[in-house]
Amino acid sequence: MNNRYTIGLDYGTNSVRALVVDITNGRELGTAVWNYKHGNEGVILSRDPNLARQHPADYVRGTALSIRKALTAAKRRLKGFNPEQVIGIGVDTTGSTPLPVDRNGHPLAFQKRFAKNPDAMAWLWKDHTGVAEAAEITELARKLRPQYLAKCGGVYSSEWFFSKILHCVRTNPEVAEASHLWVEIADWIPALLTGTESPDRLTVGICAAGHKAMYNAEWGGYPDAEFLGTLNPALAVLRTRLHSNAQTVDRPVGGLTKEWARRTGLREGTPVATGAFDAHLGAVGAGITGGILVKIMGTSTCDITVARNNSPFPDIPGLCGIVDGSVLPGYYGFEAGQSAVGDIFNWFVNYIRPDGKKGTHDALARAASKLKAGESGLLALDWNNGNRTILVDQRLSGLLVGQTLYTTPAEMYRALVEATAFGALTIINRFEEYGVTVEQVVNCGGIAEKNPFVMQIYADVTGRPMMVSRSAQTCALGAAIAGAVVAGKQSGGYDSFTEAQQAMTGLKNRVFKPDPAAHAVYKELYQLYRTLHDAFGTNSWHGNLYSVMKQLIEIRKGARS
Amino acid sequence: MNNRYTIGLDYGTNSVRALVVDITNGRELGTAVWNYKHGNEGVILSRDPNLARQHPADYVRGTALSIRKALTAAKRRLKGFNPEQVIGIGVDTTGSTPLPVDRNGHPLAFQKRFAKNPDAMAWLWKDHTGVAEAAEITELARKLRPQYLAKCGGVYSSEWFFSKILHCVRTNPEVAEASHLWVEIADWIPALLTGTESPDRLTVGICAAGHKAMYNAEWGGYPDAEFLGTLNPALAVLRTRLHSNAQTVDRPVGGLTKEWARRTGLREGTPVATGAFDAHLGAVGAGITGGILVKIMGTSTCDITVARNNSPFPDIPGLCGIVDGSVLPGYYGFEAGQSAVGDIFNWFVNYIRPDGKKGTHDALARAASKLKAGESGLLALDWNNGNRTILVDQRLSGLLVGQTLYTTPAEMYRALVEATAFGALTIINRFEEYGVTVEQVVNCGGIAEKNPFVMQIYADVTGRPMMVSRSAQTCALGAAIAGAVVAGKQSGGYDSFTEAQQAMTGLKNRVFKPDPAAHAVYKELYQLYRTLHDAFGTNSWHGNLYSVMKQLIEIRKGARS
Repeated sequence: MNNRYTIGLDYGTNSVRALVVDITNGRELGTAVWNYKHGNEGVILSRDPNLARQHPADYVRGTALSIRKALTAAKRRLKGFNPEQVIGIGVDTTGSTPLPVDRNGHPLAFQKRFAKNPDAMAWLWKDHTGVAEAAEITELARKLRPQYLAKCGGVYSSEWFFSKILHCVRTNPEVAEASHLWVEIADWIPALLTGTESPDRLTVGICAAGHKAMYNAEWGGYPDAEFLGTLNPALAVLRTRLHSNAQTVDRPVGGLTKEWARRTGLREGTPVATGAFDAHLGAVGAGITGGILVKIMGTSTCDITVARNNSPFPDIPGLCGIVDGSVLPGYYGFEAGQSAVGDIFNWFVNYIRPDGKKGTHDALARAASKLKAGESGLLALDWNNGNRTILVDQRLSGLLVGQTLYTTPAEMYRALVEATAFGALTIINRFEEYGVTVEQVVNCGGIAEKNPFVMQIYADVTGRPMMVSRSAQTCALGAAIAGAVVAGKQSGGYDSFTEAQQAMTGLKNRVFKPDPAAHAVYKELYQLYRTLHDAFGTNSWHGNLYSVMKQLIEIRKGARS
Repeated sequence: MNNRYTIGLDYGTNSVRALVVDITNGRELGTAVWNYKHGNEGVILSRDPNLARQHPADYVRGTALSIRKALTAAKRRLKGFNPEQVIGIGVDTTGSTPLPVDRNGHPLAFQKRFAKNPDAMAWLWKDHTGVAEAAEITELARKLRPQYLAKCGGVYSSEWFFSKILHCVRTNPEVAEASHLWVEIADWIPALLTGTESPDRLTVGICAAGHKAMYNAEWGGYPDAEFLGTLNPALAVLRTRLHSNAQTVDRPVGGLTKEWARRTGLREGTPVATGAFDAHLGAVGAGITGGILVKIMGTSTCDITVARNNSPFPDIPGLCGIVDGSVLPGYYGFEAGQSAVGDIFNWFVNYIRPDGKKGTHDALARAASKLKAGESGLLALDWNNGNRTILVDQRLSGLLVGQTLYTTPAEMYRALVEATAFGALTIINRFEEYGVTVEQVVNCGGIAEKNPFVMQIYADVTGRPMMVSRSAQTCALGAAIAGAVVAGKQSGGYDSFTEAQQAMTGLKNRVFKPDPAAHAVYKELYQLYRTLHDAFGTNSWHGNLYSVMKQLIEIRKGARS
């Protein structure tokens, strides 16, 4: 009974994962994934391709079942393991995924009349129905409250809190009127577990509020009622119900209720940490601290880094957000990202289906890895799904230049991988230009786990070693770490994230080291990438592209000789 | 015995074709193709990818065998057909394809010591070994004789006469010293048939000399000895052996020799017309005259038009050539072209092999034809093999912009076809900007014959009806028409090309008419194409491309709604 464990709960797009972790060394004792039952793999869709919702019933059922299964797995793995040894729970979710609730904090979707109404469900992060509203919010903020935009890269996104709410207010008055409050699921799930859903008891996390709802202590929390009321009077009413006391993940929102103790087999009163977004707790699980950039690499990427909050930081143009305490208490959290990375490779393999029937990821990566840097003569932009950082512009698209009559699928595949690496380098450079030093890059997520070819290109392009997080489940691990911190030393946990991370996180042995020759070529190619990036992506660039194709031919010639 | 026939001989890259044509109506009575035996499908290659040669023995053997077979076919087709009824012969060939010959006009390759030496063979049109020499000639002409360049678009190509000879002089002194003269095969083959190969009797055609060897009456024929001698003294010596009396295709070079009459079964003394390039006689076979643009559409295109030579014409920047009499006597001939058209579609199908195993031309064209103009959101440049007209720049490459995560192979295929159509429109516009009116576009060649999808896009993009030549063998037909003209009325032929073309050429019934709605969209897309064209292809453009992706998205939105 000496060992102590925590549970991380990771609510993704299609499923929820529960992870039981040993506090002393981060060992992952048991895990279980429960796939959401509603919609298409958990996502409710409609004829409008912008719409993407989740039914909150999936969170409730998935929480109970995934925790039970993970505990069973832990018992199987370790004789004598006892759920009583679990001393804390952490929660991470997708976001911004706001959920309309009634005056008791119960989801509208739980009411019979709204049970099948997508607008009454959780508006999933990738829901883009609020594109027009996002533009309206951006424009108004530009005029009245430029400071709001400065913290979120200059553009308010259709993926975010107020765009979604305003769209609902505009298009579904019935749901809008029935909703007393809108709650991020990152906040709602911990509240559910601790019986604090009621709006007067609800705890809000700084991560979701700060990054997606323009919450900042500088202006007293959420945007002011005058600003919100100018958008729509309903938002001014909503503002009166939004508390201005968002807190960091080292603080608990409460203890597990009797009911949830019964449903999960855990101890009643087990502290539950304030919720946060998956990428942010993923960064914690990958060992983030000052000087470390964590890249969560999947279909898209999230790039997270932190810097001590003992002096004010300048705004960084093009960043999704700079929020004090959003990742680690005592640090500013910086969030950047690429709108598509793995999705671009998937598009090429699944939509273009190149190379007869032989164009699998494995086969293309194998052939592409035999090419030298610059040998293909190709250069691509990684904007098939727009550009999140540093341009914050959805209305961009892919570009490929340098094709001859002999260009092969493997060359194209490599060019697409290189393009995402150039995009990653652009983010690193932006951080460093504004004084956020990147001393180490730690990768996690599906691509980091499974794709050494991509990792090596990233090392060669950036000229930096690419580390990979030891855990394959950094988001759930980060949530478990938050659980260990809210448990505190008195319960056998930790008093700080620093201690918890030192014990519970680590790196894989394999480090991808940059090849100096390849890096030299990529330095040249990156100049051309930046030229295209600025020419197509900014309205301040002015120039001529006459030399681009010629330089690609020269670089190709050099690589081939 | 009343009917009269002519024979057109068409020497291509892989084979020679003989075509027996009825003079009264252009009916094609018999045809035969003989595949060259040397090298790889008739082309001698080496480890240097720029090298491409032909063995002249193939011309000799192919001439005899193809004529005999074509005559046999004609006899089978028409009872009572008699080779004696053939009253004239015309010849077209690829070019510039110069052949080094000895002081008797015999190819060096026929000498035992040179039999296997590629440098002693014919240097095929697509041989690019003389890239450095071409640049040197261009630079020297720019300094000393800018007027030479003005007639050939501002750049002397590595595919042309003097680049090849100079490269041989520089790299193979043995062949260079043994060569008394270099002769275009368009001139050498008619000379062979008429026994006039000897340098003092040799007739040179204005088509090859004017377009590829900087021959112009304005400066007394070929470039002067001082200019050529500055490049290399050997060229000054060569200059003394080049006659300054190039002639048009309406004039014979002589009559068929007894020997060739015996080898072919034709009448001794049958007049043989001055030779010309395939594209130029192809234009004749497609019915070219003032106001008509003939597009020979295959792996690449040749775009030919003519204008009365009764007043001097301004030089047109970017055109491959403006030569008095190169296509029709009494007209300036204008040659333009696209370095790759069908080759780009072939690249996509054969190298990228999209859509699993289902990405055939037919399947992609079928799917692409269902899309609306602008619907894909894609835009491409047609430069995978450089740009011949109007940029005259080999050091360019392909470009595709507008890709999303849902872009399909059919959309890409259509974008590539559209790109070549935009390239075609750029050529038409250039002609018209300089006063060469294009009243009608007549297409011929493989794509015009077989690809209605491509033809429709060309109509929609250019906003002009696309006609298709009735004959599928316009080059050989044009050569046969030259044969009818050199025979003259007294032998049952014609006294002019106008008469001969009226009788012997025609159009197919199917005309591809532009769809006004599609054309309106393509007008917008063409503005974007021109922006990319000028941004990447010229050093005079100066600007910003920020709106390109956004406009493509708007056009896509419009097309989809």
